[in-house]
Amino acid sequence: MKHKLVFLLLAALISGGICLAQTNQPAVVEDFKPSSVNQPDKQYPQVNSEGRVRVSISAPQALRVQFDIGAVKYDLTKDDKGVWIGECAPQDEGFHYYQLWVDGAAVPDPNSLYFYGASRWGSGIEIPAKDQEFYALKNVPHGQLRENHYFSKSTNAVRRCFVYTPPGYDEKANNRYPVLYLQHGMGENETGWGNQGHADLIMDNLIAEGKTKPFIIVMDNSSVNFPTGARPGMTPRRPGTADSASAADTSQARRGSFGNFNFAAQFEKILIEELIPYIDANYRTLTDQPHRAMAGLSMGGMQTRQITLANLKLFSHIGIFSGGSISMEDVNNAVGFKEKVKLVFVSFGSRELENPRAGGRGPFGGDPKVNSAALKEAGINSQFYVSPLTAHEWQSWRRSFQEFASLLFKD
Amino acid sequence: MKHKLVFLLLAALISGGICLAQTNQPAVVEDFKPSSVNQPDKQYPQVNSEGRVRVSISAPQALRVQFDIGAVKYDLTKDDKGVWIGECAPQDEGFHYYQLWVDGAAVPDPNSLYFYGASRWGSGIEIPAKDQEFYALKNVPHGQLRENHYFSKSTNAVRRCFVYTPPGYDEKANNRYPVLYLQHGMGENETGWGNQGHADLIMDNLIAEGKTKPFIIVMDNSSVNFPTGARPGMTPRRPGTADSASAADTSQARRGSFGNFNFAAQFEKILIEELIPYIDANYRTLTDQPHRAMAGLSMGGMQTRQITLANLKLFSHIGIFSGGSISMEDVNNAVGFKEKVKLVFVSFGSRELENPRAGGRGPFGGDPKVNSAALKEAGINSQFYVSPLTAHEWQSWRRSFQEFASLLFKD
Repeated sequence: MKHKLVFLLLAALISGGICLAQTNQPAVVEDFKPSSVNQPDKQYPQVNSEGRVRVSISAPQALRVQFDIGAVKYDLTKDDKGVWIGECAPQDEGFHYYQLWVDGAAVPDPNSLYFYGASRWGSGIEIPAKDQEFYALKNVPHGQLRENHYFSKSTNAVRRCFVYTPPGYDEKANNRYPVLYLQHGMGENETGWGNQGHADLIMDNLIAEGKTKPFIIVMDNSSVNFPTGARPGMTPRRPGTADSASAADTSQARRGSFGNFNFAAQFEKILIEELIPYIDANYRTLTDQPHRAMAGLSMGGMQTRQITLANLKLFSHIGIFSGGSISMEDVNNAVGFKEKVKLVFVSFGSRELENPRAGGRGPFGGDPKVNSAALKEAGINSQFYVSPLTAHEWQSWRRSFQEFASLLFKD
Repeated sequence: MKHKLVFLLLAALISGGICLAQTNQPAVVEDFKPSSVNQPDKQYPQVNSEGRVRVSISAPQALRVQFDIGAVKYDLTKDDKGVWIGECAPQDEGFHYYQLWVDGAAVPDPNSLYFYGASRWGSGIEIPAKDQEFYALKNVPHGQLRENHYFSKSTNAVRRCFVYTPPGYDEKANNRYPVLYLQHGMGENETGWGNQGHADLIMDNLIAEGKTKPFIIVMDNSSVNFPTGARPGMTPRRPGTADSASAADTSQARRGSFGNFNFAAQFEKILIEELIPYIDANYRTLTDQPHRAMAGLSMGGMQTRQITLANLKLFSHIGIFSGGSISMEDVNNAVGFKEKVKLVFVSFGSRELENPRAGGRGPFGGDPKVNSAALKEAGINSQFYVSPLTAHEWQSWRRSFQEFASLLFKD
């Protein structure tokens, strides 16, 4: 009786498995290649032409190892040498965070490079995109990405920012340049636009092709008063950087819901009273309003919206990537908007628009496409861009940045 | 009978444990504080006043978790919530690499920042040192650490280097500066002297105290033709960087033992034919021999020795940290050594000298202290430095760099 039950259970499992394999799991295409963001000499993770990622890790004594990507956990299988292997469903083109679970421990994949996102330094994977040439490292003149430390009085801390200077900046010692302040998303930091976004390489390539004016980009950390890990932090490029958020800040930051929470106030103070003066004093910038832009992704887009609308005397070009939009009500509430603002650029990944809940359209000014059209109708230089077949992720933002950069500072 | 056996075994284990605790394991001092190189908001790892490190990781289903530091694996213990915790024996002051083992899987600690060393991006810990102020991030004028990409013809690849420019470099547009080419060790890369070594902060602090002349530092990757993971690589600061070592290189590199292996030849070509011309063309350097130095740690010290001895027309100041020394035989074999070389600086950690096998004294020119004294005797500006109570590790090299920097380019 007992054996018969086991047999029936096994038969059910096997037939269920076969059925599943036949209907829901198409054959995996066996053209995997090592990922471009593997650590040196590592053969895994690998990516195939479908966009599946195959990971592998040696864990001889482990009972269960899982691959956690895109909010799904995939069980790996173990070979007779104790090496676990397995792959995920096809992913969107571009960059994705992931991690492994080894008997209940969430750990980075020891084979991958590490990136700061999702409020931690952890593994990332790159699915080769059809349009990846625009952010590839090429043999063209390169700008520099400069790590800067400056003292912030309002936080009583030495802060860090990265500054991109375009090719030729040092040689053309009498040139002055427009500046873009470019913000990361929640749970990311000042390294995101370089490491994940490749903003510097996108600029180098655009400049080499004559598709944008050279300008300076400033990337600072805007997660100043956030409750969780998204604080300006110590990172591999500078472990010693002081942390400007205190425990006291965080309880204050929890005072409202996300919609009411003033997520930009402390960074606005740092940006306007400290960072902009520091940059204008230390770089050959054009310091007038027509030559200063601000943009950001997700939370950084929301901060851009709030800070620029409140400071139109400082910013003329506005970019909001997957972070809401600007409505005619906003325009009418901001004195002099039509005269002062030279560009409003709003973008989303197409999958965000298909699924508005994931797109941040909610409390931040209504339907972005409708808003953008209304602004254009009112005579404002309003641009709306949709990244094809991507979601709330870096490939949307790389493309958005490229589009935005090519529209900036056109006099 | 069975129960009695279990009882006896348990009694033996318990008494053995108590005995062990009494004789071999002194009480751990309970003044642990979160490490300065933790990821944001992480409470572990922690370090106490003895230099012990306590790590913790949640792994509810794991059977065994170990903490691997200083070539010793320590078993962690699990609490009733599945959280593992434990600490190691006291470590030397300064920086150390480590990893965790979860049921046989070697993984980075998800709580720590990551550093490139031991041929992998992985966990690092900082034991606060009594002299840590000299590499602390302070409110002083800061230089910049600049990420550069340049095309290398000999490797047909875009390579990356970091360049430190001292405070005031941009403002003093007519100043020209001496240059130091500073090399990492085996299994490390061009990020080591910034991330682990804090060379930029050491310079900022020395300059602020008037203890060194401002100079430029160039940090490139010299692991060009090495068999294992120590290749110029893609790193979190620039995942897209092309890798200049091909599979073909590695078999060639295996042709000899370490002693005979020409570990400097390919980098010498890159350095002299490509990197120095690139730096001299793109930075305001003093391009003559009296204003160019080279130094390195471990393998980088050996490369420095070999490359400078063969190119005294290019280098006037030589620094070898834990990487051998220069003998009178070397001096006599290098035409014009006494006239051309303004400084020979050799250093070791004191523990390396206590245990010469660990110190790289072997085939690289004999006893370093004897060699240094002989050079001094012969009228050469020869300096020998010993870092107290440290081994073949970053604290020795931070101190060595500080000492060396304060002696450079004194006319």
